[in-house]
Amino acid sequence: MINLAGPARAHPAAPQPGGLLDRYRQVRATSEALCAPLQVEDYVIQSMPAVSPPKWHLAHVSWFFETFLLLPYLPGYRRLNDAYDYLFNSYYQTHGTPFPRALRGVLSRPGVDEIYRYRRHVDQAMGELLIALPPAQAGEIARRVELGLQHEQQHQELLLMDIKHILAQNPLHPVYRDDLQPPPSTPPQRPRWHEHAGGVQHIGHAGGGFAFDCETPRHRQFVEDFQLAERPVSNAEYLSFIADGGYARPELWLSDGWDLIQQAGWHAPLYWLRAEDAWLEMTLGGLRPLDPHAPVCHVSYYEADAYARWAGARLPSEAEWEVAAADQPLTGNFLESDHLQPVAASSSHDGPQQLFGDVWEWTASAYLPYPGFRPLPGSLGEYNGKFMSGQMVLRGGCCATPQSHLRITYRNFFQPAMRWQFAGLRLARGL
Amino acid sequence: MINLAGPARAHPAAPQPGGLLDRYRQVRATSEALCAPLQVEDYVIQSMPAVSPPKWHLAHVSWFFETFLLLPYLPGYRRLNDAYDYLFNSYYQTHGTPFPRALRGVLSRPGVDEIYRYRRHVDQAMGELLIALPPAQAGEIARRVELGLQHEQQHQELLLMDIKHILAQNPLHPVYRDDLQPPPSTPPQRPRWHEHAGGVQHIGHAGGGFAFDCETPRHRQFVEDFQLAERPVSNAEYLSFIADGGYARPELWLSDGWDLIQQAGWHAPLYWLRAEDAWLEMTLGGLRPLDPHAPVCHVSYYEADAYARWAGARLPSEAEWEVAAADQPLTGNFLESDHLQPVAASSSHDGPQQLFGDVWEWTASAYLPYPGFRPLPGSLGEYNGKFMSGQMVLRGGCCATPQSHLRITYRNFFQPAMRWQFAGLRLARGL
Amino acid sequence: MINLAGPARAHPAAPQPGGLLDRYRQVRATSEALCAPLQVEDYVIQSMPAVSPPKWHLAHVSWFFETFLLLPYLPGYRRLNDAYDYLFNSYYQTHGTPFPRALRGVLSRPGVDEIYRYRRHVDQAMGELLIALPPAQAGEIARRVELGLQHEQQHQELLLMDIKHILAQNPLHPVYRDDLQPPPSTPPQRPRWHEHAGGVQHIGHAGGGFAFDCETPRHRQFVEDFQLAERPVSNAEYLSFIADGGYARPELWLSDGWDLIQQAGWHAPLYWLRAEDAWLEMTLGGLRPLDPHAPVCHVSYYEADAYARWAGARLPSEAEWEVAAADQPLTGNFLESDHLQPVAASSSHDGPQQLFGDVWEWTASAYLPYPGFRPLPGSLGEYNGKFMSGQMVLRGGCCATPQSHLRITYRNFFQPAMRWQFAGLRLARGL
Amino acid sequence: MINLAGPARAHPAAPQPGGLLDRYRQVRATSEALCAPLQVEDYVIQSMPAVSPPKWHLAHVSWFFETFLLLPYLPGYRRLNDAYDYLFNSYYQTHGTPFPRALRGVLSRPGVDEIYRYRRHVDQAMGELLIALPPAQAGEIARRVELGLQHEQQHQELLLMDIKHILAQNPLHPVYRDDLQPPPSTPPQRPRWHEHAGGVQHIGHAGGGFAFDCETPRHRQFVEDFQLAERPVSNAEYLSFIADGGYARPELWLSDGWDLIQQAGWHAPLYWLRAEDAWLEMTLGGLRPLDPHAPVCHVSYYEADAYARWAGARLPSEAEWEVAAADQPLTGNFLESDHLQPVAASSSHDGPQQLFGDVWEWTASAYLPYPGFRPLPGSLGEYNGKFMSGQMVLRGGCCATPQSHLRITYRNFFQPAMRWQFAGLRLARGL
Repeated sequence: MINLAGPARAHPAAPQPGGLLDRYRQVRATSEALCAPLQVEDYVIQSMPAVSPPKWHLAHVSWFFETFLLLPYLPGYRRLNDAYDYLFNSYYQTHGTPFPRALRGVLSRPGVDEIYRYRRHVDQAMGELLIALPPAQAGEIARRVELGLQHEQQHQELLLMDIKHILAQNPLHPVYRDDLQPPPSTPPQRPRWHEHAGGVQHIGHAGGGFAFDCETPRHRQFVEDFQLAERPVSNAEYLSFIADGGYARPELWLSDGWDLIQQAGWHAPLYWLRAEDAWLEMTLGGLRPLDPHAPVCHVSYYEADAYARWAGARLPSEAEWEVAAADQPLTGNFLESDHLQPVAASSSHDGPQQLFGDVWEWTASAYLPYPGFRPLPGSLGEYNGKFMSGQMVLRGGCCATPQSHLRITYRNFFQPAMRWQFAGLRLARGL
Repeated sequence: MINLAGPARAHPAAPQPGGLLDRYRQVRATSEALCAPLQVEDYVIQSMPAVSPPKWHLAHVSWFFETFLLLPYLPGYRRLNDAYDYLFNSYYQTHGTPFPRALRGVLSRPGVDEIYRYRRHVDQAMGELLIALPPAQAGEIARRVELGLQHEQQHQELLLMDIKHILAQNPLHPVYRDDLQPPPSTPPQRPRWHEHAGGVQHIGHAGGGFAFDCETPRHRQFVEDFQLAERPVSNAEYLSFIADGGYARPELWLSDGWDLIQQAGWHAPLYWLRAEDAWLEMTLGGLRPLDPHAPVCHVSYYEADAYARWAGARLPSEAEWEVAAADQPLTGNFLESDHLQPVAASSSHDGPQQLFGDVWEWTASAYLPYPGFRPLPGSLGEYNGKFMSGQMVLRGGCCATPQSHLRITYRNFFQPAMRWQFAGLRLARGL
Repeated sequence: MINLAGPARAHPAAPQPGGLLDRYRQVRATSEALCAPLQVEDYVIQSMPAVSPPKWHLAHVSWFFETFLLLPYLPGYRRLNDAYDYLFNSYYQTHGTPFPRALRGVLSRPGVDEIYRYRRHVDQAMGELLIALPPAQAGEIARRVELGLQHEQQHQELLLMDIKHILAQNPLHPVYRDDLQPPPSTPPQRPRWHEHAGGVQHIGHAGGGFAFDCETPRHRQFVEDFQLAERPVSNAEYLSFIADGGYARPELWLSDGWDLIQQAGWHAPLYWLRAEDAWLEMTLGGLRPLDPHAPVCHVSYYEADAYARWAGARLPSEAEWEVAAADQPLTGNFLESDHLQPVAASSSHDGPQQLFGDVWEWTASAYLPYPGFRPLPGSLGEYNGKFMSGQMVLRGGCCATPQSHLRITYRNFFQPAMRWQFAGLRLARGL
Repeated sequence: MINLAGPARAHPAAPQPGGLLDRYRQVRATSEALCAPLQVEDYVIQSMPAVSPPKWHLAHVSWFFETFLLLPYLPGYRRLNDAYDYLFNSYYQTHGTPFPRALRGVLSRPGVDEIYRYRRHVDQAMGELLIALPPAQAGEIARRVELGLQHEQQHQELLLMDIKHILAQNPLHPVYRDDLQPPPSTPPQRPRWHEHAGGVQHIGHAGGGFAFDCETPRHRQFVEDFQLAERPVSNAEYLSFIADGGYARPELWLSDGWDLIQQAGWHAPLYWLRAEDAWLEMTLGGLRPLDPHAPVCHVSYYEADAYARWAGARLPSEAEWEVAAADQPLTGNFLESDHLQPVAASSSHDGPQQLFGDVWEWTASAYLPYPGFRPLPGSLGEYNGKFMSGQMVLRGGCCATPQSHLRITYRNFFQPAMRWQFAGLRLARGL
């Protein structure tokens, strides 16, 4: 097993003895641990415009600390290389025009060693900053460090998504980690529906701990009574949809989705390969037989929506999802479980399963501002708010999400055609 | 002045003495009256994939009656030409694969005369059907006729949008109607904010008269107290946004919008032309000096959203808009006013102005199903539901909308980059 | 039968009694006669970027006379509409930036009637100019008129190519001329090879009569002894190529051609349709059974080249073709034969057949300047020379070429992927 | 200085004492020496579809030996990895469908170490084959080994072209070799014209030593008397063309070229950067001030052709070039000179300069088969012949060409828009 971040990893939500600097070191170490199985060549590839080369991720998260912490708050700090401000700015237009995203894969330099040197340069300066916090600015610095760490955790999940996509393009089917074992899998029960009372509900982050601006403010929404399925849709269930002609029946699909599957020739989730007599699945542990009992994963919003329609149900709204999840323990198959793949639900009927971890669950809600939403001031305001167009919300985290990164109110978002993230679905319906 | 549909036009909401057949004839006549100023050549052009040739509109709305009324309900009805079922099916995939939308402009045949002959063929058969309604099916037939008429009214607005776009591509600046006069325009007042109480509100169509499936069911939404501007944003106000660098400041824009205006080189609304010392505007009455007092029109969602952010406000949600409009009289500058262009607000302060007519108002709401939404059964279920992805809601109708077509609960929708529809905006803010 | 240009048409090469003006009127009348069978709607369509709307052709050839004759030589001449100088300039960049070629099909105006009015306007002025030729400029004017007439004849062929393409996109299979009869067709003989002695040959136009600049100067080329097939490849022969897997065997194809047929999904010549048990062919007389004895037509250079390789032969060079044609009578199935479709060769063995007319014959020669080539001075120098890149030469004229337009030295040229022209092939080989 | 291939490098055309195996080892070592300055990351990048990652080049040339020598002739040879037959087949469609060229840059694996292991695997087997040549097949094997070595030398030049392109995309301007010194540069003389007598000339490879199939057969061409400039066009001369509005005057350009420079925004040769008060040039030695006296390099055919027209001259045909070069010594600034950049001509007037080496010289000739051309049998026939479409011939080699690779009859070819090869031009004109 890979050593993600030492002993502390087992209790990611536990209070950090050494405070912010310890946590900084832990998060930074995890990013590097995730890249440890890579060959140098793997760090360089951009397999589609939405994917970034792993070395770019490692540099960009460092640029974030440099730009928003070190330059404003550490007197005398010098960039390692001024050009990095251009190369590793992702999308902060108010900070300066970034290097074009689609061209990240044409940059061989700075090389991997140099990028690790850049990380050391930033880490050393961050150590200086955090050891001698200027009191007047300690609050703002702590808030920004926390944001920087949450940001780096997001990129940890992106690293795994992108590495999987990069390796999956290769006819050699390279294995990211050959020590990953498929967990034991037994057939789950046919899922029960759980009823939830509606009414005026409070949704969003209430304060007390970190949250992204887009999770705020906590506000009221009216929700009708609804039912939510006990567990996500499984591969076996999704295979029934395929067998029933799911990808050939236009009445099941949103118009954009129908056009997309015609044009792209989609007939199954991403990473599924049809072998002669069985379905295989590309995973971070290599090519494996598809586990029928595990949640279906790597489906687009259009596929999730079509499946739900075929099943006589629908996707939940994000408010419904949050209402249902409000009293559930935030545990599950996260990054720290080290499966890096969704696993089968348990066969018990003890209540909702897998709301957290395994697969992000597509909701029926567009990613839009909550009433009263205010982005962070300055360039950091570009973090979330400007993407509130053309995307759908997903909830609950996945097997590649660090557990300490997730919250019940967490709003993930992707364009409806995207499916290289670990995304599945859970059914909902009215009463 | 063009005769849109005879005397009855002045009272479109009045009960129809002759019943359904009279109304059928009136709506059908209006479509043809809208095309009367065209030359044959104008009927043929598809100036962008989203535009259809006017002759295609005239045929498609007839195909709708043929397909959903005549073939199922009029014994012995024969299509004029079997190929029309392929050529004039817009997007009903469950009915059969339609002729590719983007290629509608390569079809010179059937010609305009033949399409009018097709209309006569359908009209005659519809007359037979409606004069001797089979009692057992009268209810369903009446519902479908009403849907067909509402459908044709939608295409009347599309005809005007598309004709405007077609003529506007032409360096000769052809005039659709040379008898249109710009209405007198005086500076409106600086708009007041009107406060509206929130709480649990009932939104959507309550029954009693026609509505599209997507306006139902009536349901509850929680709305915070809010303020809505008295009138839409004017051209003069939008010019201030431009003058203040609105199109050059990334912090004002959604990310997709910023990318779009860079790539497309947008610096002003569609149809604005910069003359040496003034702005001109292409209208259905030809090229005119821009009226500073009229509502800004032909802006995309991205531009509306950026303007609102620049103004320190936001767009209203569709629920807010519907709450504010609930007790307003449904009158305004509609198709029947025969301006075919938005006009300046009055200079009084007697309450909300121009909620109806003039310009469709972009809302901050994605076009998504209401809780409990059920599409119509069969192929007609493709009418609205399958487009609930990637589009934003607009409210209130415009100067090209037939007045009898609009309702307070009416949900129009377009992709956020689209701006050839008559679309403007009204500001909202919290308390 | 359509009246192409009155009695004189039968003897197009005969001396013109009335001189230049008579010939001007004749050529102009032919263009309009070719459009007589069109509906107004047909005049407007641009079915692909390389196609122009028929009304554009009619206007552009008039713009040519206006620009290069009337404005420089007729004192007091006024353009009918100044904007036409922009709209109907095809590609004369030194004259001014032309309206974008790919957008010609979005222009409904000027309409067809207006364009005929434009023609009358130009015709009247040309009459004035030609009746009272200023002696000092008579030579240059006569040269330019001749060029203008040759230019209009080129567009006559383009009109037929484009009309055919426009109508062929339409699932209704509209018929351009319903009075065209397929000529009697009998199986031709298996073609003999005719030997031709090589050596230093004189190629190109020798002076004496009109020629395009690209046909000059007459110059020497060394040609090896060669053989040329007696007649073009027939449809039956091409069907054998298809049946032998011609479109599925990469060793037969140039690399660009192989990529093209994969991507475009070509399996047969343009305008062929596979019916249940036979091949049909779209013609200007409508959909017809494929005539196995007629020359194969509407093939690209890549297809012609692949066929030749499959047949163990090659395409001739343009010098070889010209050597072989030098002593042949310039007669054949041209526009005036009024078949508008290639016809079967005769079954005799009396020597080369169909070198002229029927189908343009792809040669193995790139369209490049002859040694010592000088383009015409001024903007007219853009007529031919600037296209000497990326194109291949075709020789001999076709069933849509006016007979008086062709010469033995005539060099036609198209990009190798193009096949909407009436293009076929004839085999050659060394000794 | 990099050690390209040991002592033998100085006399590449000298007889090889150790015979074929020695030469094999020498060529193979040169490929690896050229990659020695690379970081692992550089090996992976595909900066445009026409560029291949350096590691792909190293593998592909090995696949060539494996496929055409080891598998047919070395009993018991086993591929290192069967998938390599798919991954490293460049374009031999008759051998099997190759991995898509445009996706070579998404493959991180096999990694660089693995590819060197593949080279060792092939090298060892080639050693076995060449040490114990089966007598019956020795001739064919020797011919194929020679072809494989010439092929690898071509890829040595491609490696340098591609490495330059890859590094030049990077805003950091990485340096391939920091030990390269710009050679001393003095102003060359204004070039004299050298006259050459024409007549029937013998062109092409006469036998006696290796040549590619496309250089054969030797054949006769008629050539008019002509003049050829003493040396290639220099950067200073090309700057005059730019200063004279060369890129803004359509009359100087072929139509395709004009469209290209408008759309691509070209205003200077590739790799030129405009600094505040001077032109810089990206070289394999990093960013340098442009040497005004060196030959202009990295221009497309369109730019070469436009320059020639501006200068009142033209490009030579390939026959003219070969006639002029026939009696010149085959020496010059080749790969072995280790400048990796064209250098200034000498200031003497002793006859033609730089016909060989420095820059490939665009000719006015399309890349087409010589009369009587026969491609090699089998899959090797795809080497050259299938590319004889849409490309222009270049002659003379460049500063990145191994000297032993070039011949007077050598025909290089590129599409007219390409300019990442080291391409310049030399003027010609008639008498």
